[in-house]
Amino acid sequence: MARKINRIGVFTSGGDAPGMNACIRAVVRTALYNDLKVTGILQGYQGMISNQFIDMNSRSVSNIIQLGGTILKTARCADFRTPEGRKLAYENIKAEGIDALVGIGGDGTFTGIEVFSREFDIPVIGIPGTIDNDLYGSDFTLGFDTACNTVIEAIDKIRDTAASHDRLFFVEVMGRDSGCIALNSGIAGGAEAILMPETGTAIDDLIGQLEKAADGKKTSTIVIIAEGEMNGGAYNVAKRVKSKFDFYDTKVTILGHLQRGGAPSSFDRVLASRLGFAAVNLLLAGKSRRVVGLRGNKISDINIEESINNKAFKLADDMIELSNVLAI
Amino acid sequence: MARKINRIGVFTSGGDAPGMNACIRAVVRTALYNDLKVTGILQGYQGMISNQFIDMNSRSVSNIIQLGGTILKTARCADFRTPEGRKLAYENIKAEGIDALVGIGGDGTFTGIEVFSREFDIPVIGIPGTIDNDLYGSDFTLGFDTACNTVIEAIDKIRDTAASHDRLFFVEVMGRDSGCIALNSGIAGGAEAILMPETGTAIDDLIGQLEKAADGKKTSTIVIIAEGEMNGGAYNVAKRVKSKFDFYDTKVTILGHLQRGGAPSSFDRVLASRLGFAAVNLLLAGKSRRVVGLRGNKISDINIEESINNKAFKLADDMIELSNVLAI
Amino acid sequence: MARKINRIGVFTSGGDAPGMNACIRAVVRTALYNDLKVTGILQGYQGMISNQFIDMNSRSVSNIIQLGGTILKTARCADFRTPEGRKLAYENIKAEGIDALVGIGGDGTFTGIEVFSREFDIPVIGIPGTIDNDLYGSDFTLGFDTACNTVIEAIDKIRDTAASHDRLFFVEVMGRDSGCIALNSGIAGGAEAILMPETGTAIDDLIGQLEKAADGKKTSTIVIIAEGEMNGGAYNVAKRVKSKFDFYDTKVTILGHLQRGGAPSSFDRVLASRLGFAAVNLLLAGKSRRVVGLRGNKISDINIEESINNKAFKLADDMIELSNVLAI
Amino acid sequence: MARKINRIGVFTSGGDAPGMNACIRAVVRTALYNDLKVTGILQGYQGMISNQFIDMNSRSVSNIIQLGGTILKTARCADFRTPEGRKLAYENIKAEGIDALVGIGGDGTFTGIEVFSREFDIPVIGIPGTIDNDLYGSDFTLGFDTACNTVIEAIDKIRDTAASHDRLFFVEVMGRDSGCIALNSGIAGGAEAILMPETGTAIDDLIGQLEKAADGKKTSTIVIIAEGEMNGGAYNVAKRVKSKFDFYDTKVTILGHLQRGGAPSSFDRVLASRLGFAAVNLLLAGKSRRVVGLRGNKISDINIEESINNKAFKLADDMIELSNVLAI
Repeated sequence: MARKINRIGVFTSGGDAPGMNACIRAVVRTALYNDLKVTGILQGYQGMISNQFIDMNSRSVSNIIQLGGTILKTARCADFRTPEGRKLAYENIKAEGIDALVGIGGDGTFTGIEVFSREFDIPVIGIPGTIDNDLYGSDFTLGFDTACNTVIEAIDKIRDTAASHDRLFFVEVMGRDSGCIALNSGIAGGAEAILMPETGTAIDDLIGQLEKAADGKKTSTIVIIAEGEMNGGAYNVAKRVKSKFDFYDTKVTILGHLQRGGAPSSFDRVLASRLGFAAVNLLLAGKSRRVVGLRGNKISDINIEESINNKAFKLADDMIELSNVLAI
Repeated sequence: MARKINRIGVFTSGGDAPGMNACIRAVVRTALYNDLKVTGILQGYQGMISNQFIDMNSRSVSNIIQLGGTILKTARCADFRTPEGRKLAYENIKAEGIDALVGIGGDGTFTGIEVFSREFDIPVIGIPGTIDNDLYGSDFTLGFDTACNTVIEAIDKIRDTAASHDRLFFVEVMGRDSGCIALNSGIAGGAEAILMPETGTAIDDLIGQLEKAADGKKTSTIVIIAEGEMNGGAYNVAKRVKSKFDFYDTKVTILGHLQRGGAPSSFDRVLASRLGFAAVNLLLAGKSRRVVGLRGNKISDINIEESINNKAFKLADDMIELSNVLAI
Repeated sequence: MARKINRIGVFTSGGDAPGMNACIRAVVRTALYNDLKVTGILQGYQGMISNQFIDMNSRSVSNIIQLGGTILKTARCADFRTPEGRKLAYENIKAEGIDALVGIGGDGTFTGIEVFSREFDIPVIGIPGTIDNDLYGSDFTLGFDTACNTVIEAIDKIRDTAASHDRLFFVEVMGRDSGCIALNSGIAGGAEAILMPETGTAIDDLIGQLEKAADGKKTSTIVIIAEGEMNGGAYNVAKRVKSKFDFYDTKVTILGHLQRGGAPSSFDRVLASRLGFAAVNLLLAGKSRRVVGLRGNKISDINIEESINNKAFKLADDMIELSNVLAI
Repeated sequence: MARKINRIGVFTSGGDAPGMNACIRAVVRTALYNDLKVTGILQGYQGMISNQFIDMNSRSVSNIIQLGGTILKTARCADFRTPEGRKLAYENIKAEGIDALVGIGGDGTFTGIEVFSREFDIPVIGIPGTIDNDLYGSDFTLGFDTACNTVIEAIDKIRDTAASHDRLFFVEVMGRDSGCIALNSGIAGGAEAILMPETGTAIDDLIGQLEKAADGKKTSTIVIIAEGEMNGGAYNVAKRVKSKFDFYDTKVTILGHLQRGGAPSSFDRVLASRLGFAAVNLLLAGKSRRVVGLRGNKISDINIEESINNKAFKLADDMIELSNVLAI
């Protein structure tokens, strides 16, 4: 039988992502609507250890749905990796009256609540929030759609100037070990080549592609480079290409952390609202150790171990294939 | 056995939608990649009748992936509804050498190619392109995501000024008979109330909601009104609310056709690329009378009759429910 | 000799405008830098009467430079127009320790502080903040540049769809009695016609212009209509044009209050920072009853009576002329 | 007495800038309005030498006002620096019937037409078009305003994530030898420090500023670095700061050429329209060897030698001062 929950603790952890605030809002308001109380835990796991708690009401989350970042902040926390740290965290949240947790973040976040719930028998739900879109159990993670929009706005601007000259542009995008942002934004931006960890393009192959594009009389060429691909990032690729292929003037853009910010897209805000709503409803239904996600056009949930233990393979086959076909 | 196709005709029809150009580009380049020829048909069915054809090569679709509207233009065409009109259209496209059609648009577009392919035995594929998201067979139609982003950018701006005053804003959005844009942008915009054809909110109920919001000390209230809802649009709703509820200063925004334009979002460009790629591959595989669409995270296809004959019910139950819960 | 000022009161009044927060930030930080204290007065003159004061430090204005609206809110205040109301306001701000005022707003705001400073001998500085750009003494008022950018983004989107069809779009923009937003955004948006209070275009003349454009084979026509022009707004103009000129399908967009919101442009943020900085420096220099403004590329200041008593003529002659020449 | 001009040649040269297309449109339409013919010269001076001419009519410049880049493209041209190259260029444009030139670009562009007009007695007008805002004779150059908006949108996004963590962000912006983009976008973005060529901040001084900001409990710090400043760009500054100051996690963004693209702002489009209109009117009035510009809120013109020979000092004193005051 499900235990009665009185107070939910909500936190964000890991790299921040657009849509986290919309998700916090959904968790808080869904909980309040169901007569639960809500504590916001600041700085993720660090806040559990150092007692950074704030009581949240409906107005605490007014006018935040459109904000990038996270009002609860995030931080790394070495202490939570130790049994002593987790014990202290548990005592603190118990003293605060928190009897269930909703954690928004990536695989590190999920690993944390998984261990925590095993050790202290507290209900936990994970919500996938990372721009990298590298989690198993959801077609899309919070922030990924916004990050792709941010990248293509940059590519569109670069293409304006690319069309005016004969230039070769290298744009480095985020994604850690995942090429998901690179592949999606590369297709959406009409890039001539996309370098990803998953496909592992060698420099010589890239040069071959660029030569083909030059023959086709393209006036400009844009190459998207995932930060995790094997050639060491945009600067290194640019340097190596330039040494073999000096027809073009090469230019580098490193988008960096601006990809983590910005007002979330409609897609991310709707997804955030649905996931936060679903997470609280799962807790109310007596569930624990679940990760909510979007599958197809429906919200569903899987075991947290299943999410943690499966490596994500997000790159759809048709997309890898068409990225080559459409670049002609 | 599949007939050999030599030349594809591609056209856009109905209301234009962001992503149509990205989709045209994908159709053209996928066809060229497979050694097919491509004719662009201007002005939709009207162009078939009045012989508005352009031969398309890879450069014809350079630098259009980011453009709103459609380079092939659209038009209404009464003549195509007559057997004589269609016969003329068929003779024209045959003379042009077109032996398969890809039509991008809404249900009117699909109805047209369905009849046409029955009468003249020409292979046809439909691609769902409309901001209204009201077609059966695809979780998302081309342009819907961009339109929602456009609406929430407007709502975000209105909320800035709303937060500075005690005001009641009515924002009318598109969607014809569908509340899909209203529901998604209303949730994403954090609207206090959403009036949709599907839910049919009476003015008295709306006033009840607004009074509850006023009690909760919200400093601003934004109401999203789908153009197809039963009270006759934002101006009429505003007038009737104002007469019963004069606490607030009421303001109306009619977004109108700006919702049909704008650079397509990353989501719409990727979707457009995948759908265009899939449509040509279906033709190459000898298929006809199919509508391609996104289901889950996969591209699939259904019979065109199935798409035409099913009324779309796109509003997910959890979304209607959460739109009330989160507005508290 | 200048009196020693210890505490500045800052407020926003009238319609809000993008850049007001950036200006509040500049006033607060410049004052603090010079060892003055600062009180934020909420709701403009109303806050003086009802004692809505908040003490402001450097962190009070952190992370607001990019926000539309005003964190100090604005309100209308009938009481301040009475001598009794102003007396109460003065007693309240005196009790708060405020010995100088910076008011950000339009002519109503300036009229208020002008009377107030005469009656109670308190130093006052006015900062022009309104999207309408209708104040004498500054080439640009805070928020005008952002509002023009908002309007042209809307026009650009409408033009996407306009280029796909043969349509006539009417876009109504703000500006009260001023055509400044209409003229600037009309030129910047490439509108085919601009209806403004200053130029007074009759419907028959407009129809003449539209016929000329139709002859020139323009595929789309966009008409910008200032809310204060003589024909009664976009809906009325559209109706009257339609009845005489049915070649086009006519569509109306009412942008409304979204023009008052949005993240301020770089221009508005820099202007806001310079004006706020200058206002405090004037008070420190013992000045009062001045309005600061941008003239050329320099910040200057004029007597507040001069600003109030002069009607603004902001529409540069070359711009009115070129708006006709470039629409061909 | 002024010679009769029949055909104007218009070209863009040097780095492209948002607003160039709006300016080309204004030149073309103003010329046509006055019954002049217009030739578009592709690739700048290179196009004169290699005969890349296109006849332009009103429709040639339809729907380009909102586009970044330049439809006439730009290129570097070593040949034009030789007397033989210029002679060939002159013979070509003479053969084309061009009897006056409007060149849009930076100081290199102006130097080219200045020499050309002396050698071949052809009327020339220069229009300042560069994002760097480093030309004498105009308060603002075409593209500068848009570039600043592009930069602050990036900074706003970075600040979202900055507010969630304790991080130190370095953002490198363009401007060649000018700190104008850095100063304006740094003020508008609320940056904690701005490194510019003009002010020459040593690393130790920067570290002092950052330590002060850290004491003031700022949760994030953003440093804007002009590409031309003395410490060698964002990567080098980040490395040197990191080695002495490891409290923060440091992150680098290199915006690169996306600053040259994007739809021009309203300000840039209006400025482009006024300058193009004025340039043609000067030619019609028999003037030559002038550079048009915005001074105050008025379009004026100066001798081209005056523009070339004066080093621009665009950084207003109050802005440098307030950038320090407001960063507290």
